[in-house]
Parts: sequence; C-alpha cells; structure tokens
Amino acid sequence: MNKILVNERLKRVAETFGTPVLVMDLNIVKANYEKLIDNVRNSRVYYAVKANSHIEILKLLRDLGSYFDVASRPEIEKLLSIGVEPERMSFGNTIKKTKDISFAYNNGIRMFAVDSEMEIEKIADNAPGSDIYVRISTNGMEDDADWPLTRKFGTSVDHAIKLVKYAVDLELNPIGVSFHVGSQNYNPDNWRVAIREVSVVFEEARKMGIDMYMVNTGGGMPVKYSRNIPSVEEISEVINKAIVDYIGENTLVVLEPGRSMVGSAGAMVTSVILRSKKGEENWVYTDAGIFHGLTETIQNIRYEVEVIGRELEEKGKFVLAGPTCDSVDVMYYDIELAKNVTIDDLIVLYNTGAYTTEYSTNFNGIEPPKVVFEEIFVKEPLTEEV
Amino acid sequence: MNKILVNERLKRVAETFGTPVLVMDLNIVKANYEKLIDNVRNSRVYYAVKANSHIEILKLLRDLGSYFDVASRPEIEKLLSIGVEPERMSFGNTIKKTKDISFAYNNGIRMFAVDSEMEIEKIADNAPGSDIYVRISTNGMEDDADWPLTRKFGTSVDHAIKLVKYAVDLELNPIGVSFHVGSQNYNPDNWRVAIREVSVVFEEARKMGIDMYMVNTGGGMPVKYSRNIPSVEEISEVINKAIVDYIGENTLVVLEPGRSMVGSAGAMVTSVILRSKKGEENWVYTDAGIFHGLTETIQNIRYEVEVIGRELEEKGKFVLAGPTCDSVDVMYYDIELAKNVTIDDLIVLYNTGAYTTEYSTNFNGIEPPKVVFEEIFVKEPLTEEV
Repeated sequence: MNKILVNERLKRVAETFGTPVLVMDLNIVKANYEKLIDNVRNSRVYYAVKANSHIEILKLLRDLGSYFDVASRPEIEKLLSIGVEPERMSFGNTIKKTKDISFAYNNGIRMFAVDSEMEIEKIADNAPGSDIYVRISTNGMEDDADWPLTRKFGTSVDHAIKLVKYAVDLELNPIGVSFHVGSQNYNPDNWRVAIREVSVVFEEARKMGIDMYMVNTGGGMPVKYSRNIPSVEEISEVINKAIVDYIGENTLVVLEPGRSMVGSAGAMVTSVILRSKKGEENWVYTDAGIFHGLTETIQNIRYEVEVIGRELEEKGKFVLAGPTCDSVDVMYYDIELAKNVTIDDLIVLYNTGAYTTEYSTNFNGIEPPKVVFEEIFVKEPLTEEV
Repeated sequence: MNKILVNERLKRVAETFGTPVLVMDLNIVKANYEKLIDNVRNSRVYYAVKANSHIEILKLLRDLGSYFDVASRPEIEKLLSIGVEPERMSFGNTIKKTKDISFAYNNGIRMFAVDSEMEIEKIADNAPGSDIYVRISTNGMEDDADWPLTRKFGTSVDHAIKLVKYAVDLELNPIGVSFHVGSQNYNPDNWRVAIREVSVVFEEARKMGIDMYMVNTGGGMPVKYSRNIPSVEEISEVINKAIVDYIGENTLVVLEPGRSMVGSAGAMVTSVILRSKKGEENWVYTDAGIFHGLTETIQNIRYEVEVIGRELEEKGKFVLAGPTCDSVDVMYYDIELAKNVTIDDLIVLYNTGAYTTEYSTNFNGIEPPKVVFEEIFVKEPLTEEV
C-alpha cells in the first residue's frame, strides 16, 4: 500500500466532509474477520461492539455471520434494530444492571458472563436457566499488554470453580470459561498459559458432573501502532494447540475481538488550527484531541502520524495537542512531524478505527469526529514496509 | 444543611428520574454568582460555559446579567439562541478554528484571547479591529493547583509584551492580560503574584503608548471536595488589593469562574449494580463511572461520597468502580463507604456540578447521566460541619 496514495484519498474525504473525520474502510473489517475465523479452529467471533458501534460496521458483521459481545441494553437494542438474532449475542459485561439482564432475557438472550456470586444471583433471578461462563483473571500475563484488565475483571481459578458450582445450584447452565490477556497483548504464549488455567476449571467441573464446552479467549490481539506485533496467525496457532493439548479438540472457541477487528480499518484526519512556540517547544494544535477521539494517546497507544502532502519533507520534534481549554488535552509531547507543518495542514493518525469515536465527548461544545466509509486501503491496511 | 435531609430529597429525585442523575440546584449557582460579584471590586463574571453548558444554567446567568467565556462555535450558537448579546461573550480559547473566529466576528463578538503570533494573525484577518487580551503563563504557582494549565496555555511576560505590540501592528486593540493560576488552586497569594506579573506587561505597553484597562484573573477558585479551601472572600481580598497596588484602582477585573460557579450546585446520584470480593478487596460498582461523568476522579478530585440511608452506619474500605468493560473505569481504590452497602443502594457524590456531564461519553452504549433541576440545598451547599 502506498502511503502517499492513501493520504491523497484521505485528503479528498477531508475536503468533502470537513475535519475531524474518521475514515473507515469496511474491506479491512471484512478481511480482519475472515482472517480470524480462518485461523482459529472451531471458532466463533463475538465482535466487541464497544470498540466501534457504528451501524455500518454492525451491518457488515451481521451479514458476514458474526456473533456479538454486548455490554449494555442500548447495544442490544441497536443490534435487534438491524435484525441480529438474540442467539448471536453474548452479554459479556460482568457488571450488568439487573433490569438490563431482564431486558436481555425477555428479548431472547441466553448467554451471560459472570465473575461473582451476586452476578450469578442476578442472572438466576432475571434470566433463569441461562447459559453462563465464568471469567478468570490472568495475573502476570498482562505485563505484556498495553491495557491490563485483571484487577477490575475476572476471578481466581479456585473461585471460578466455586462459581460454576454455585451457578448449577441456582439452576443456571455453565458452558465454559473466559479470560482476557489484556488489551493489546504482545506475547502469544500468554494465551497458552491462560488456556492451561482454564483447563483446571474444566477438570474440576467435570469431577462435579458438569460438562463445559466453550473457551472464550476474549480480545487482546494487538493492532500495529508503532511497535511490532505478533501476527494473528501466530497467536491463532498458539490458541489452537493449547485448546487441543489442555481442553479437547471439540471445544468451541469464542473470540471477542474489538481492536483487532476494526482498529486497522480506520484513519483519523485532523486539521492543524494553530502552531506556536512555547519556550523551546514547538506546539501543533489539531481540531481533534483526547476529548474528541484520541483518548488512547494518553494511555500507551502510539499511533503512526503523518502530515498529508509533507510525507517526504524533513522532520522535527513537536508537541501535538487538541483544541480544548484543558491542559490534559495533549496527545504526544515528543512526536516527529514534518518540520514545516503549519495551519490548515491535514494530519492523519493511522489505525484509529477502534476506541476512538466511542470515547468522544462534546467537551468545550466541540462535536465528535464525523465517521465516513470509503475504500481507502483497497485490500489491506497500511503497513510500514510498503 | 442537614445531610440526611438533603439525601432524602436526592433519593426522591433518583426514584422519579432513575440513575445516574446529576441533580442541580440553581439557587446555589445564583448565590455563587452574587458572592463573586459582591466580593471582587469593579468586576465582571464571564462564566466558563465549558464547566457545565446546560441551557438552564445559561438562562439563569443570562438573567443575572453575567457575561460568558466561550470556547467554540457551538457554545456561541447556544448563547445566541437564548438571546445573550455578543457583547457579553469573550472567545477565551487560545486555540480557535479560523472559521470559528469569522463566525464569532460576523455575529458581533469583539473580544478574543491570544498567546501566540499566529493566533493574532488569524484574528487580524478574520475579526479586524477587535479587542484582544494576552494570556500569560503562571509558572510555579500551579504547584498549589489540582490541575495546572501552564504548559499548554499562556506565554512568558516578555513574549506577552511582544504580542501586545504585534497586535497593535496588525490594527487590533489590546485591552489587557489574562492568566490562570490552575484549576482548583489552594493558595490565594498566587493571584497576587500573577497580578504583579501582569503589571509588567501593562507598564511596558504604557511605554509604547498602549493603555490597557482589563485584568482577566481566569478561573481556579477552588470548590470544597475533601480538603479545606480558602474562601471566595479571602481570594477576592487578595485580588482587590493586588489590583490597586500593582495596576490601578479603575482596572476592570474579569473573572472566568466555571468550577466555583456550578461545582457546589450539583450532586450526582448513582445506583450500586454489583458488589463483589476480589481477593481481599471489596468492590462496589455503580451505574456511572469515569466515562459517564466521574472523569475527574482519575485526576486529583476527591468527591465526598455517601450511601443514602446508611449515613450513620459503620464504614469500611472499598474500591468504587464504574459499569464499563474498561479497567480504567475505577473512581477510587481506597474509599470509605457504609460497610453493608449493597445492590440497589444509592450512592451520592457531592459537589459534582462542574466538569462531569461535560466529560460524558456513550462508551459501552451507556448513556450520560440525566440532569435534573431541583431545590435540593435550599440556601447553601452542603458543608461538612452542619
């Protein structure tokens, strides 16, 4: 993929629709979906709607036969409104409102995540007889992830076994175990270790006469930002082998990709609205910032960034900041941009299809970025080497 | 004010409207406005709309005769739509879109903030002949503030003097200097030091034949969360004295309160949706979190928190977290709550009228808190001693 060619296309979109604009290419979403399904044996993709809930993405995945991981009632309603059957939804948030559980159950959803006694009680009361799966935490493995999720979510293997038993006592149907190695995890072996942990819960359940059949490997497959990542093929191979080695080859493998499904399908185009010098620092301010889609920049995410039309010019060091009256609204304090970048230049941030517009606010009265669907990348997302 | 009585009122609102709900009392906004105007000599309040842009608050302040500090075109449009005259608006963001400057100018706004050459050029081109004021930074003073603003905003005194000259060269009208001691600043002497800095710019401008008359003291007056704060009276006295000592008694003092105008006028009521034990930690999850109004908890803001109906019960240590599938969504890792807090209890966070709903997202498909106006506090906000 030629970066200058992609950037010219992005420029045309920005000129037509204004900035900030998130340009999404559905071809890439489709390719990402197919790559996952092709590589992980006996798998189902439950797309994590929270990563990017735009209706066009949901419709595409509906047509591809995807399943969906939902976090709240509004997400369920959105999927029902486009004809996704409740059998294709899993209510994967371990912190559900009681009335949302009722709503889900009354609309046919029968699959729920749990990691605590109280959540099991809520489901037993409001969604009797449903399938549940227990989320275990993956202590230690998340050192390789950009966003660990362990402390808030999941429980120990020992406690998970108790929860499986408790669910049966309350006449629920435990079908398996889920884990999440942390968002944007760089070490494939973590999936193997997690699946080995899962196998302990399966084993103990079997001893209690409970036959489970599903391993939910969560999300966490990384998207290429600035550093190199293991490929989907590599991680899939580890998952496939670990499932056979530790659980059994007929196990249903549930995947919950969010970032790895839509991240590489999007590019955010912003305009430079001011350049100024502060002491020795050169500051560039754009019309999108951390309150308008670029939230993850203040965590660990280093997007690849380029000034459109200045790809071949000499670079310099800059501070890149957003447009609001808030000092937190700074994306990067040390980024390389074309030295002569100036007002009205377009700056593109690649691989911004996930967890961008979903985090947008209207802070300072400024509206979230528009979302436009265009065939920008044609067949594959932009990678550095081409 | 009796806390239990206030909480009973909040409970009725929550039962009527559902949770999460931000309950705002306009009496408190009015009292805060009047206290400021009464205490700072020769002053005008430009309310920082970004703190809480709810139309009811804007209408109240319109009727009280307030001026408004705006950050973007949508904020201007909102004020125009309720009949606020452009003469009562200051475009105080130092990072404005060029076309927003045109829009402001074409609608009669003539007052703009600057801290860089390029911003002056944009205003000279798109709002010719307008009043400008230069924002200086307040290095060092912000050690006493919860949210320093210096690195992104403002410039040195020496550079400010150059900018005043540059504005005159481009036929703009420099009327004064602004500063901001940082949001939630605890040391009144910082205002004195800042005004002394401002006086240097005034002096040098006078030598160039430019007579300025306005000092914009920004925001930064603190709201009482958990620690003690200096009173509005105390800070006002410092400002009044410094203006006379360093600038001159006929100086117009512009105030840009946001937090100190609306913070104490609001209380956020959330419901407990899950309680669980993770290892040794007790976790309580509510239906609002950092993506749904409680964003500032992950910065330095420690709201006072209470479980309604359990005010007099024994307390214990908890982790307080929000409802989304995101590990960042944790408000406090070490908070005291009633030991027996459980599902469906209402938890109130006081002094949440500023910078809460403005930061809300729809992440996880979950809607922002509702906003309801009720006479909750009657005459004054809740303080600890009563």
